[in-house]
Amino acid sequence: MKSRGPVVPEWVAVDWGTTHCRAWAMGQDGSILEDRRSDRGMGSLAPDEFEPALTDLLADWLDKVTPDTPLSVICCGMVGARQGWAEAAYVAVPCPPLSPDLTRVKARDPRLDVRIVPGLKQDRPADVMRGEETQIAGFLSHTPQFDGVLCLPGSHTKWVQISAGEVTGFQTVMTGELFAAIAGHTVLRHSIADGWDDAAFATALSDALSHPERLAARLFSLRAEGLLHDLSGATARARLSGLLIGAELSATRAWWLGRQIALIGAATLCSHYETALVAQGVQPIRTNGDGLTRAGLIAARALTVRK
Amino acid sequence: MKSRGPVVPEWVAVDWGTTHCRAWAMGQDGSILEDRRSDRGMGSLAPDEFEPALTDLLADWLDKVTPDTPLSVICCGMVGARQGWAEAAYVAVPCPPLSPDLTRVKARDPRLDVRIVPGLKQDRPADVMRGEETQIAGFLSHTPQFDGVLCLPGSHTKWVQISAGEVTGFQTVMTGELFAAIAGHTVLRHSIADGWDDAAFATALSDALSHPERLAARLFSLRAEGLLHDLSGATARARLSGLLIGAELSATRAWWLGRQIALIGAATLCSHYETALVAQGVQPIRTNGDGLTRAGLIAARALTVRK
Repeated sequence: MKSRGPVVPEWVAVDWGTTHCRAWAMGQDGSILEDRRSDRGMGSLAPDEFEPALTDLLADWLDKVTPDTPLSVICCGMVGARQGWAEAAYVAVPCPPLSPDLTRVKARDPRLDVRIVPGLKQDRPADVMRGEETQIAGFLSHTPQFDGVLCLPGSHTKWVQISAGEVTGFQTVMTGELFAAIAGHTVLRHSIADGWDDAAFATALSDALSHPERLAARLFSLRAEGLLHDLSGATARARLSGLLIGAELSATRAWWLGRQIALIGAATLCSHYETALVAQGVQPIRTNGDGLTRAGLIAARALTVRK
Repeated sequence: MKSRGPVVPEWVAVDWGTTHCRAWAMGQDGSILEDRRSDRGMGSLAPDEFEPALTDLLADWLDKVTPDTPLSVICCGMVGARQGWAEAAYVAVPCPPLSPDLTRVKARDPRLDVRIVPGLKQDRPADVMRGEETQIAGFLSHTPQFDGVLCLPGSHTKWVQISAGEVTGFQTVMTGELFAAIAGHTVLRHSIADGWDDAAFATALSDALSHPERLAARLFSLRAEGLLHDLSGATARARLSGLLIGAELSATRAWWLGRQIALIGAATLCSHYETALVAQGVQPIRTNGDGLTRAGLIAARALTVRK
């Protein structure tokens, strides 16, 4: 990274999700000149607030840009949702993770040439993704021959079938968001605290996988055991996580049983999924999610330059 | 109800839950002289705020009361929780729904003689109830010979085994609170609206009962079908309800299959449970919950007078 003089990006890569916006000033050959982030995510912006949020964030990166050679900005994520800056209509699977047709955004500032990577949709069973397609493209740019299932744990975990460089189908499970809603907005908020308990996670996971039909009766026991038997908040947290990841693995058995699995995402969360899958006899490949979104945006940029 | 002159209650019945407080000025033989409610529930009160909240609510009912013959106030509900006015320690099942030992509260106002009905606990599997024991007592005061299972749908639905006038075991399922957390605090809040769809409820219920292991994969489809196939908010609402009540019935099969069931609670919610149980070949008795808490408090009052 340069320590002196103004940064003059060749183009800008932007990961613009619901809660955050992250931008990289890109140099030649995928080098990173500088990176910045803000908390002005899609969820807090009206449609006409995206452009000012972007120009605020890029600021001096635009100093040397003229309308004759506008700065190319490639965005992915919820910025392309219907309630985002401009809707980047979903592309139907089976298809490569990146469409060559990025959605162009009409910016008022003539120095900006903004394009958004479209999300993917699956007609039946109905499903959608927006943002993960770019991570998938980043993964495939490193591992183009991968044939199997990608699991991207998160608020909305995605299970994605990859074959011959295409996404052939996917399944979303809202495990992360369910965990947050239950731990934050039900009576269990009094029972769950920071910390972890490996044994409680393993037991709850096994219970949920062996008896998925009992899940609904398990949740309140976290509260009752806290009141009656001093169950710790850390154990309750690990048990809730085990129950919900177990319910997810029950629902997605066809996606992982006897399959080649790659886990993509944040380290701690992926390690829980890895533990869970290993307990079921599946050994996933682990790939750190950091950098995959940027690698996917680089691949998207290459498509626009090639055209 | 009297239209003139001050109300002079013989005693006061109070249903004091997390969000509301309801009081009845009781006359002889269970007659109701007047009733009042406030939104000063347990959840919004510090321990020392309960007494002022009560004296505010009763107000003129206390006008003719002297410290020599204090007014008997019998309370049930979360007022007796650890974080309530005074903890009314749980009584272990098997036991009658009402303990003869109500918990006395030390009020600063000498005109008040306040007692709280204790909740029930079950050691293994760990479970607790607070408030429902009074409804159960009210039900049994009308139907003392009932032998079977009571289902009390609500935020925390209770399935309660009754035998020879005693509670012999129970199971809590947080279906109502799960519905509220998912419909209010996940991405599904964009997909769920008022209204109802009987067919969608029935299909989702059947799906959840036939394939409880798939539940976790069903939820996000409400969002995706809204985006891709214009699924209506009313249909999404009924489908979420069907999935969660179906998950509950999966988890509680031993409580209702081939059993005598009485449903106690609010009419609309009970009708969903009735529809669900009838679809499984079980015909529950329906009992309107209104009045049962009061009937239970009358039974509790009788216990204190008898002592």
